[in-house]
Amino acid sequence: MANFQNLLAYLSEKKNKIDETLKSLLPEKKGYGGRVLEAASYSLFNGGKRLRPILCLMGYELSEKNSDEILIFAAGLECVHTYSLIHDDLPCMDDDDFRRGKPSCHKAFDEATAILAGDGLQAFAYECFTHKKILKHVKPRNLIKAVNLIARATGFQGMVGGQMADLLAEGKKGNSRMLKWIHHHKTVALIEASLLSGAILAGLPKGELKVLSKFGKNLGLLFQITDDLLDIIGDEALLGKPVKSDLKKKKLTYPSLYGIEKTKFLAEDLAEKTVNLLSPFGERASLLKDLTLFILNRVN
Amino acid sequence: MANFQNLLAYLSEKKNKIDETLKSLLPEKKGYGGRVLEAASYSLFNGGKRLRPILCLMGYELSEKNSDEILIFAAGLECVHTYSLIHDDLPCMDDDDFRRGKPSCHKAFDEATAILAGDGLQAFAYECFTHKKILKHVKPRNLIKAVNLIARATGFQGMVGGQMADLLAEGKKGNSRMLKWIHHHKTVALIEASLLSGAILAGLPKGELKVLSKFGKNLGLLFQITDDLLDIIGDEALLGKPVKSDLKKKKLTYPSLYGIEKTKFLAEDLAEKTVNLLSPFGERASLLKDLTLFILNRVN
Repeated sequence: MANFQNLLAYLSEKKNKIDETLKSLLPEKKGYGGRVLEAASYSLFNGGKRLRPILCLMGYELSEKNSDEILIFAAGLECVHTYSLIHDDLPCMDDDDFRRGKPSCHKAFDEATAILAGDGLQAFAYECFTHKKILKHVKPRNLIKAVNLIARATGFQGMVGGQMADLLAEGKKGNSRMLKWIHHHKTVALIEASLLSGAILAGLPKGELKVLSKFGKNLGLLFQITDDLLDIIGDEALLGKPVKSDLKKKKLTYPSLYGIEKTKFLAEDLAEKTVNLLSPFGERASLLKDLTLFILNRVN
Repeated sequence: MANFQNLLAYLSEKKNKIDETLKSLLPEKKGYGGRVLEAASYSLFNGGKRLRPILCLMGYELSEKNSDEILIFAAGLECVHTYSLIHDDLPCMDDDDFRRGKPSCHKAFDEATAILAGDGLQAFAYECFTHKKILKHVKPRNLIKAVNLIARATGFQGMVGGQMADLLAEGKKGNSRMLKWIHHHKTVALIEASLLSGAILAGLPKGELKVLSKFGKNLGLLFQITDDLLDIIGDEALLGKPVKSDLKKKKLTYPSLYGIEKTKFLAEDLAEKTVNLLSPFGERASLLKDLTLFILNRVN
């Protein structure tokens, strides 16, 4: 088994930097509309791993530049992700009362406040992406290209389209084509865009961006598959029997479609292919390689 | 009374151009997530006046450049506005079953689809703002500055904060300070940012941007006040008696706080001050002057 000590130290350091950046950027929770900032802040600091901003930093660091230069940009990606979680949890969507063991935003506040907190976080993300401090280090045209990529990855042809399809698929007989489409749009697109946006900000050449796009897609899918596996394995470990919460909800997932054992095999196969994609980067990509194996390792 | 023939021809021409631009940009309503695009399209083409994009074009034209160059950017402002209307109409917000005489988005579709349509339109707006075609005519740094302005104007310290405060004020005894705060954040900020963003894209000098910021704030307030007046006068004209729908809903507005006659007086006074702000621009601002008087004229 790989030794993840370096990676874990790296992830912890970057998570702290992202959290500090978010705290320093968020407006004060005062004035007549302060409640919506309280709600946004509640969900933003609820134990997230900051995977998407960290991927952005990792993409930037492939150029061997200092990723502190784009912390504000990367922090915006966590705002996009958090907005999507708040809205996904709403009663008319996935109807989840809890998120990471705490009441979800609409339970801790109310539905209107939760919808507005999500809306405000999406706007705030673009405030971060276009913060003037980033232009001290990044070419304006690269920044615009990166923002455009994220907007597409999270819109109708990305995350929002994926969530729509996921809702429509609930309770229906799914197939592997539909499942791939949903994962690719709902989860993978933003994970890929997070890594790529950092690489674009750093000005990496087109050839490398192409490889990173493929790597990001694979990594996003691996993350989704292992997350769905963890949901089931986690329940089993906790309760001593297979609860299969996603099956109960009739959600279309790899485990619900292929079963646990075949899904584990698919994840291992995917992780190997994903790591191999990094060979052109050599040592520069050693952390990305560790991260891939670490994500797979969650289910072993 | 002013002759609005030129203005009306201008508004009609620009509205058509914005509509064509939006139609050409929106992705096809196909694939597993196509339903959310149907819903977004339903609300986007529901008879809006396209005031915000047109203000952006007017701001750009103050430089005597051809505003066709930034049609895609301007179209994004309509996407932001439409997303806010869809979410405002939701049952947990203002609970409006109708919008411009047609079923509101969540009535024509469902709540989940309406929330996602709004989310997708906000992302799509930023896709428009950062479209590569705009960079043929606009300096990248100016574009980033304009996007940042819009993000701030629509976020926690703008539109979203204003909607939160508006919801919290419902049914409570309001005062003029609170009312100004709500209007400024909920409506005025985006109208001001629409005009200013066009002027920033055109590279107008700081001194002129400062005047336009003040003008935009006044115009936005005038628009909100006359809109609230129209709600009441319109009901009276239609039904032969004062319905005062906003009073019924206990919404805080100028008419609910000051009564109809005093509000009309305030609107006339504000319009005069607003037009006077344009004097440094001379003939260049003749359409903005006409627009101000036209907005006032709706309630006379």
